[in-house]
Amino acid sequence: MGTAYLVGAGPGAADLLTVRAVRLLEKADVVLHDALVSQDVLALAPRARKIAVGKRAGLPSTDQALISRLLVHEARSNPVVVRLKGGDPSLFARADEELEACRRAGIPVEVVPGISAGFAAAAAAATPLSARGIARSVVFVTASTATGEGADAWADAAAAADSCVIYMGRGQGGAIRTALLARGVAPATPVVAARSVETAQAAMWVGTLDGLADLTATAGGPGPVVLLVGEAFGAARSLALPETAASSPRPLRQARRA
Amino acid sequence: MGTAYLVGAGPGAADLLTVRAVRLLEKADVVLHDALVSQDVLALAPRARKIAVGKRAGLPSTDQALISRLLVHEARSNPVVVRLKGGDPSLFARADEELEACRRAGIPVEVVPGISAGFAAAAAAATPLSARGIARSVVFVTASTATGEGADAWADAAAAADSCVIYMGRGQGGAIRTALLARGVAPATPVVAARSVETAQAAMWVGTLDGLADLTATAGGPGPVVLLVGEAFGAARSLALPETAASSPRPLRQARRA
Repeated sequence: MGTAYLVGAGPGAADLLTVRAVRLLEKADVVLHDALVSQDVLALAPRARKIAVGKRAGLPSTDQALISRLLVHEARSNPVVVRLKGGDPSLFARADEELEACRRAGIPVEVVPGISAGFAAAAAAATPLSARGIARSVVFVTASTATGEGADAWADAAAAADSCVIYMGRGQGGAIRTALLARGVAPATPVVAARSVETAQAAMWVGTLDGLADLTATAGGPGPVVLLVGEAFGAARSLALPETAASSPRPLRQARRA
Repeated sequence: MGTAYLVGAGPGAADLLTVRAVRLLEKADVVLHDALVSQDVLALAPRARKIAVGKRAGLPSTDQALISRLLVHEARSNPVVVRLKGGDPSLFARADEELEACRRAGIPVEVVPGISAGFAAAAAAATPLSARGIARSVVFVTASTATGEGADAWADAAAAADSCVIYMGRGQGGAIRTALLARGVAPATPVVAARSVETAQAAMWVGTLDGLADLTATAGGPGPVVLLVGEAFGAARSLALPETAASSPRPLRQARRA
């Protein structure tokens, strides 16, 4: 019987995995990977049989149970099985279900952290998530479109923190704007929308909460979008992007060098 | 004139830096590092002149301005200057002040993300920060002992999120407990205290919010302590630490293998 490793693939670039993750991939027998994990990253596992999983691989999102069963199945007969997840396995990656499946099956399991998309976005934009005297709390949320009890809890958490990092916000700019304004967040609060940072499709847009619907409509193209909302991003933006007009889209690399 | 790189050193282990960080250290001319950065990590920069900065290096914490000036000074006359920070440079690392100093001086600056301590703690304990149906928001705070307007804002943010990761909580267990209970967080809410994960001094304790004062008193020894507070950590703990009695300290490595 082998060991299952839940490994963070980071935001996209192969050099933003940890050294520990790279060494595990080098000796992996099997890699179960999210469809979003890049070919550059998969190339780090030359020995491994690679299996794409997740909804972008054609599975419905409810088939998390199938992924967990597959992980257990492979770990029963292969020494090193890597479950490679975009970003960090501990944040919005459903690691809890896969960990539980391994434990129930008696499969030893370890977690190797990775760079989550919000940290990559902040780094690429040179906009720290926290800032002395401005932002002493940073919340990570997914903007759920679910209805019913607790469906708006993400917005309460977002409004209570100084900085807010919103995952999976693509196409939800209008709803996010409405929910945060209703909780007293100022319309002029700075917003950064970062798409697919650390990939060839990287791009970044800057604006305000009041213009968020337009901002996320502009942030088209492939890949996930992370939103940074808070006063800290306004101060940082003027440092990182001194010549960028609010709401004008420009490629990330260009913005970084400006 | 050179370039300043604000680089995340991660939680302690040399194999938890990113590949990008390692490559930068290999070619660095100067490394300005927090005193907490380990010798194993510093050994990744064989060419560099190394300068310890920060309050543990004997500077008062108010001397952030001195660090910023030193960074600018070194980058004026060395091609590759790395400012190496424990964890991730964008979170509770005062990167905003150093970025601003570089910008004002016209020094090109880039940020290379790292694994922040909260992610390392969650990975080491196999306790994801988010969990489907239980924890859809995760807040990172520092538990400030300051008084005056806004001093308690961290606790409001902590209470509003499903999972809370508290940095620099050492010795403040009683105050944190009081502040969170006053905001309606249940006394039985699970807590994990993780000390110096990914170092030789690593240890972890598990308990509840009601017992937090005892828990952080127990978490003695060298190195920073990260607290994980939330229902998600109870569910995960029973997976990662099936035989651990609440409040009994045990070494982290032993706990992971249990």
